[in-house]
Amino acid sequence: MITSFNNKAVRDVIQLNQKARARDKQGLFVAEGVKMFTEAPAGRIEKVYIAQRMEEELRGQYGDKLRKLSCETVADEVFDKMADTKTPQGVLCLIRQFHYNIEDMLAGKYRGNDTGMSIVINSASHTEKKNKKQMLFIVLEDMQDPGNLGTVFRTGEGAGVDGIIMSGRTVDVYNPKTIRSTMGSVYRVPFLYTDDICRTIHTLQQHGISVYAAHLKKSKCYDMFDYRKGTAFLIGNESSGLKEETAECADAYLRIPMEGRVESLNAAVASSILLYEAYRQRRDMGREQP
Amino acid sequence: MITSFNNKAVRDVIQLNQKARARDKQGLFVAEGVKMFTEAPAGRIEKVYIAQRMEEELRGQYGDKLRKLSCETVADEVFDKMADTKTPQGVLCLIRQFHYNIEDMLAGKYRGNDTGMSIVINSASHTEKKNKKQMLFIVLEDMQDPGNLGTVFRTGEGAGVDGIIMSGRTVDVYNPKTIRSTMGSVYRVPFLYTDDICRTIHTLQQHGISVYAAHLKKSKCYDMFDYRKGTAFLIGNESSGLKEETAECADAYLRIPMEGRVESLNAAVASSILLYEAYRQRRDMGREQP
Repeated sequence: MITSFNNKAVRDVIQLNQKARARDKQGLFVAEGVKMFTEAPAGRIEKVYIAQRMEEELRGQYGDKLRKLSCETVADEVFDKMADTKTPQGVLCLIRQFHYNIEDMLAGKYRGNDTGMSIVINSASHTEKKNKKQMLFIVLEDMQDPGNLGTVFRTGEGAGVDGIIMSGRTVDVYNPKTIRSTMGSVYRVPFLYTDDICRTIHTLQQHGISVYAAHLKKSKCYDMFDYRKGTAFLIGNESSGLKEETAECADAYLRIPMEGRVESLNAAVASSILLYEAYRQRRDMGREQP
Repeated sequence: MITSFNNKAVRDVIQLNQKARARDKQGLFVAEGVKMFTEAPAGRIEKVYIAQRMEEELRGQYGDKLRKLSCETVADEVFDKMADTKTPQGVLCLIRQFHYNIEDMLAGKYRGNDTGMSIVINSASHTEKKNKKQMLFIVLEDMQDPGNLGTVFRTGEGAGVDGIIMSGRTVDVYNPKTIRSTMGSVYRVPFLYTDDICRTIHTLQQHGISVYAAHLKKSKCYDMFDYRKGTAFLIGNESSGLKEETAECADAYLRIPMEGRVESLNAAVASSILLYEAYRQRRDMGREQP
């Protein structure tokens, strides 16, 4: 059992929570809480730390999963120091980072059994059905709030996205606040960072995906487009929106209308409204084909 | 100029930021930042505090508004102590709390020129047009996250709500984090707390408003309802959802579908998807009547 605040593992977890550089160097990130532990793919878990107060409960309930993993018990007060939250749930894991690439994303290779929506009903196999579904992406330019980013992962999985693409200056997805607000979706939604967002947009377009830039002015209302084909939404930074040169790479501009004196919506909310409009149209299409 | 950390005004603002009881006792709240100052209704501003570093800029740009108000300059380091944010923008106001009631909400008395959507096109006067618009409400039961609540205000104004109704155990709308994330909408969207949420729902129903409970199971998909009539959405607590007895007061249950392994959406996101679906349907209606 770890009882010292000076234990190397304790210092290491604190570093991983606080520093993106430490996370990238070790290729790991920290996932805290019971839900994040239970939903973590066992093959990616490097280490599990359990607060002494939670040991009996967790070993009782998740003994099968824990037996196959490298596990260590930590004295309560030391655990609370390791954790990033104010009221830690008593379990945290070190998880190996994910590596996705755009080619496999576009080829649908990451479409698992959990995600993927089968709206086309025919005699084809299950896999084939999934692959008939048109691609849906969200592209984030310089999103800064970790909670917003995590929320986009959560809503994105809900709406059935095939991937989340982020500009190099977007907040780190492995930030502990982002991880928590994904509510586990980070384990299942493919994502990648790009240093050249316009080139990535071009790659999407070459694969027949229409790219829509969310823009505040001079554009058509978002619900006037057909998102049943391959679709990607382009969302800008919380305070400055999309850069003009990025918006210009898109196939079309769209606008989310707003009443009153609202100048813009929260970036995670705007993303959610667009993703759920695409998902709504796609479900409607499913309904038309009995 | 205030230069002492012990100045009564400084201690007072800190109290108002930290304690709901202090806010309610004095009938005031703190609104921080340039946007929150510029959008504040002048008649409600009790006091403006300006950091010395910002004085010239603010007096130059907003001299007209400031001249009519009670204003005080604060030494920079003292101001930063008064503020609730890590990097304060150098201006904060004390604002008198709002008092709305359900009767006036339902009678459309709070429909100003800023809010209100005129989708019915006829020869009637501007006011009459506004009043033809069907009511739209959101009812929040025990929402706990201040950022989520503020986001509901912001999106709510955007979607044209007539009011936000909150259970007594909902987080305080005057919490500084909530105020900030409303981005000014708190000044314009009518709201109230109710100690008896089922009675309030009943009042809405008596006024011909259909109340929909967002529920995770056994319910119709949210986009299968007609929200062009008077509509209220009922949203539950972030972790436990709606109480059964509250959900049972609704006219119908609705479900936001989710792909993958997502169990629920963020409460502010769920609210936004519903409000924007209602707003979309209402705009569609407008389009049909050229």
